[in-house]
Amino acid sequence: MAMVEKYGRKPAEQGSRRSEGFVLWMTGLPGSGKTTLALILEEMLEKNFGRYAEVLDGDEFRKGISRDLGLSKEDRQEHAHRVSYVGKLLAKNGVIGIVALISPYKKSREEAREVIGKDRFVEVYVKASLATCEKRDPKGLYKKARKGEITNMTGIQDPYEVPESPDILVDTEASDPEGSSKMIIERLVELGYLPRAHGRISA
Amino acid sequence: MAMVEKYGRKPAEQGSRRSEGFVLWMTGLPGSGKTTLALILEEMLEKNFGRYAEVLDGDEFRKGISRDLGLSKEDRQEHAHRVSYVGKLLAKNGVIGIVALISPYKKSREEAREVIGKDRFVEVYVKASLATCEKRDPKGLYKKARKGEITNMTGIQDPYEVPESPDILVDTEASDPEGSSKMIIERLVELGYLPRAHGRISA
Repeated sequence: MAMVEKYGRKPAEQGSRRSEGFVLWMTGLPGSGKTTLALILEEMLEKNFGRYAEVLDGDEFRKGISRDLGLSKEDRQEHAHRVSYVGKLLAKNGVIGIVALISPYKKSREEAREVIGKDRFVEVYVKASLATCEKRDPKGLYKKARKGEITNMTGIQDPYEVPESPDILVDTEASDPEGSSKMIIERLVELGYLPRAHGRISA
Repeated sequence: MAMVEKYGRKPAEQGSRRSEGFVLWMTGLPGSGKTTLALILEEMLEKNFGRYAEVLDGDEFRKGISRDLGLSKEDRQEHAHRVSYVGKLLAKNGVIGIVALISPYKKSREEAREVIGKDRFVEVYVKASLATCEKRDPKGLYKKARKGEITNMTGIQDPYEVPESPDILVDTEASDPEGSSKMIIERLVELGYLPRAHGRISA
């Protein structure tokens, strides 16, 4: 196996495009708007910046890599760990990973920052009150939780640990999905993750 | 959640670069040379084609996404499933995924082809006789298996189902790692996954 040593692994940063990848980690209560924003952002990033983004949606991910995991604290943390690992692989290859994951535990989000690397990790707190999320109830999960048909619902039976100092905060009660998405993009430009656009950012 | 419908998911093939991603799935006995070839190929692809490749090494992967899995048939299949899922995400974003995974079961490899999509999946059988692999024994695993310290060793206690019609076959007893890697690259050019190079392919 001498060849392995001879060739070795080259540093992830070698290529210029590679260094542009990052992960937008969107955390928030169920129904706060994470997936909605993720899909709009995916489109805006391609349209305005010519960048490819991959939405890593928690629910979708559970059908693929995390199909063995449930909703216990331990399983949620393992789930977040796997998502962060995939996000890292995408980011180091120049892709923008947009994670839409409740990720209720501060510890999980901190681990994700470590796995992905702090220079490539952008925590977005998608904020909406429990009352609003429960009213939206896009998947009918709050209703089920109130009936006791679901027993691990974040916000009802399970805790949601509010991010203390997210890199970006959007309040989806205060602005509509397009407005929130534009705000995130503008903040990404400010933070240096995206270049200043030549014109107005369009949805 | 009307926005989700309005924006929806765009087809993965929309961008031109995206359509260039694929997964090189290298299967073979432990010690056949999968990881060695993967690392050489990663370098050759960047040097000769300006392409980014990500090595998805089975052992490395077990420390990240598959840290809960063992070596039973069921666990190996789940492991391969997760690797294929990550490969798919990379490939659809224009990255070349180079999988170095024993993947001893035909069923797993067929599933990987389905998950990744047959137009993006290239099966490479890294061939070497058991006797040669055992002589190389780069990780000392064959020795441990012979002593009974490992009980799920592919080739010793566990089966390896030889690919019947791999897209590419390299015999690592017949050619050295650079030669085998060049052969794989040449075959990828023939298959249309890579453009015809302007000069000689260099290692």
